[in-house]
Amino acid sequence: MSRRVSHPEINREDAISVGELGEFGLIAAIQARLAPDERLVVPGGDDATVLRITNGRVVATTDLLVEDRHFRRDWSGPADVGVKAAAQNLADIAAMGARSRTLLVGIACPADLPAQWVLEMIDGMVAECARAGASIAGGDVTAANSVMLAITALGELDGLHPVTRAGARPGDLVAVDGRLGWSAAGLALLRAGRADDPAPEMASLVAAHRRPQPPYAAGPAAATAGATAMIDVSDGLLADLGHIASASGVAINLESARIQVAAPVAAGARVLEADAMDFVLAGGEDHALAASFPPGTVAPDGWQVIGAVAEGSGVTVDGSPRNGPVGWDHFR
Amino acid sequence: MSRRVSHPEINREDAISVGELGEFGLIAAIQARLAPDERLVVPGGDDATVLRITNGRVVATTDLLVEDRHFRRDWSGPADVGVKAAAQNLADIAAMGARSRTLLVGIACPADLPAQWVLEMIDGMVAECARAGASIAGGDVTAANSVMLAITALGELDGLHPVTRAGARPGDLVAVDGRLGWSAAGLALLRAGRADDPAPEMASLVAAHRRPQPPYAAGPAAATAGATAMIDVSDGLLADLGHIASASGVAINLESARIQVAAPVAAGARVLEADAMDFVLAGGEDHALAASFPPGTVAPDGWQVIGAVAEGSGVTVDGSPRNGPVGWDHFR
Repeated sequence: MSRRVSHPEINREDAISVGELGEFGLIAAIQARLAPDERLVVPGGDDATVLRITNGRVVATTDLLVEDRHFRRDWSGPADVGVKAAAQNLADIAAMGARSRTLLVGIACPADLPAQWVLEMIDGMVAECARAGASIAGGDVTAANSVMLAITALGELDGLHPVTRAGARPGDLVAVDGRLGWSAAGLALLRAGRADDPAPEMASLVAAHRRPQPPYAAGPAAATAGATAMIDVSDGLLADLGHIASASGVAINLESARIQVAAPVAAGARVLEADAMDFVLAGGEDHALAASFPPGTVAPDGWQVIGAVAEGSGVTVDGSPRNGPVGWDHFR
Repeated sequence: MSRRVSHPEINREDAISVGELGEFGLIAAIQARLAPDERLVVPGGDDATVLRITNGRVVATTDLLVEDRHFRRDWSGPADVGVKAAAQNLADIAAMGARSRTLLVGIACPADLPAQWVLEMIDGMVAECARAGASIAGGDVTAANSVMLAITALGELDGLHPVTRAGARPGDLVAVDGRLGWSAAGLALLRAGRADDPAPEMASLVAAHRRPQPPYAAGPAAATAGATAMIDVSDGLLADLGHIASASGVAINLESARIQVAAPVAAGARVLEADAMDFVLAGGEDHALAASFPPGTVAPDGWQVIGAVAEGSGVTVDGSPRNGPVGWDHFR
C-alpha cells in the first residue's frame, strides 16, 4: 500500500464510491485507518512488507471470503465482515499454537461500492487484529464485479513447536475451547428471517454469526500444555476433528454428555425447531479450537475435555458415526 | 491444503468440473502437482504453513488477479495465467532485494470450471516459482462467479537490507533490468485481434503479455550493489518511477537516448501504428526492475542506466513531463 498521504476527499467518503476515490486514494484512506506497527521493518506502501520474526520460523495462512457465499452485505455490516475475515485467519494461526503478527489484506470490489463500506470493513479488521495482538501490514485493492477479500495472516511461534493436525495418538484426550454452534444457529436465524428476534439469546447468536470470537490465546496455551494436534473449527466440529483423525491416522470418539450446549444455542434450536447438537457438532465458523493432549494432561484454562483418541479411523459420538450434517464443501 | 491423497477421479480430470471434484478433491489434486519443499517446517495441509526464515526477517506481498480484468481466459491459457500470477508477486519480492521462498495461493472459481483449468494453472505457477527458486506452500479454494486468484509471496533477505522506494537521493543513477513495453504491445495486439500474426516478433510480444519474465536475480544483485531504492514495473515505467520519486521526495529525469526500444516492441508499434515509447514508458506488467544507485556505481550485469535522480519532484523525460499515457488505476 502507498504511504500515508493527506486526502481531503475522504472527509466526504460516506458519499463517494471506490471508483471516484480511485485506487491510490482508496489505499491512502485505508492506510490512514491503520495504527502504525513499530515492529514492521518495512510497513505497507512498498512492493512488499518486511517483518521481523523471532526464532526464525514464520507461520502463514491465507483465506478467501466471497460476497454472497461467505457473507451477505444485507446480513452483515462492513465492520462485521472485517471482523469475520480477520478472525478466520487469526484463528488458523492460533491453531498452530502460534501468535498472529500481521495481516495482508487483498480487496476486490465494484467501482460503485461506497468507499465508506471498505473503510468500515477495515475498522472491523483492525479491531479484531487488536484482540489478537496483530496489525495490518499491507495488501492490494482491485476492481471486480462483487466484493471479495483475500486475507493472509503471518504469525510466529515464540520458541514453541508448531502443532499440526497429524500428531494425535491413541489414548490422547480431545478438548475444545471456544464457542460451538453459535454461528450456525445465528445463520439459521438469519435464513429464517428472524434476525430481529428481540430475545437476547437470539441476538447473541446472530451477533456470533456476524462476529466470531475465536479464543486466540488458547492456541499458544494448548501448545505450551503439550497439545499433540490442533485445528480451528471452521467447517464443523465433526468435520474438523475428522481432519485431525485422518492426518494423524487415528479415530476420535466424542462423549455427548461432555459436550456443553450453550444456553443461546439451545434456545435458538427450540425457536428453529432444530436439533441443537446439529449446530454444535456440524456448525462451523465459530473458530473454536479443538486439540488433542497426552493422557493425564490437565487441560489449560478454558479447555473442555469432550472425548478421546483411539486406534482406527473416523469420528464417532458415543461410539457411533453421527447421522446428519457434518460439514461443508464450498463447491457443493 | 489437505495432505496428498490418492484420487482416482483426477485421471479423468480433463472431463470433470471443479464442483464434481469437490473442494477437498480439488485441493488433493493441486497438492499432487506440487514438488515437496523440504525447507518447509510444516507444508500445506494444515491450518497454516510454517517456513524457516534466515536472518529473522520475512518479506511478504499479496496481489489479486481478477478474470476479465487482469486476464482473459480466451486470451491466455491456464498455464499462462499461473505464470503471470506467480510472476507479479515474485517480482514484488525481488524488488525489495529479496529472494522468494514460497507462495500461498487462493483460488476462487465457478463450480462448473473444468478442474483441468485449475491444475494447468497450478503447473504454470509451479514452473514460474521454479525460475525464482520458490515453492507453493498452501492456500485456499472456494467457489465464486468468476475466476479470481489471490497470491501471497514470502521471501527472505539473506542478510541484505531491504531496498524500499524511499531511499533515492539526488545524484543517484537510475537503471532498469528487464523488458519494457513488451507486455503492453502484446496486449495491444490481442486487443486489435492480431494475436495470430505469424511474424515472430509479434508472437514474442503476445507471449510476453501472457508470460512475463521478470529478472528475479536482478533484485538481490541490485541490493548487493548498493541500490538506494527499487520497484518493479507493474503500472508502467513512468508511473512506477513516480512512486520512487514521491516516496523518496526527489525528482527523476530519464534520458530518452539511453532507453532501449527492443526490436519486437518497435516492430509491434509499427504494425499497430502506435508510438513505441508509449509502450516502453507507460506499459506495465513486464515486471522489469527499476532502481536508483549511488553516483559512480557500476550497474550490475543486465542493468542499463537510463537517467538520474535530482532535487524536486515528479518524473521527466529529457527534462520535460511526458505527455500521453503514464499508468493504470484499477478503478478508472
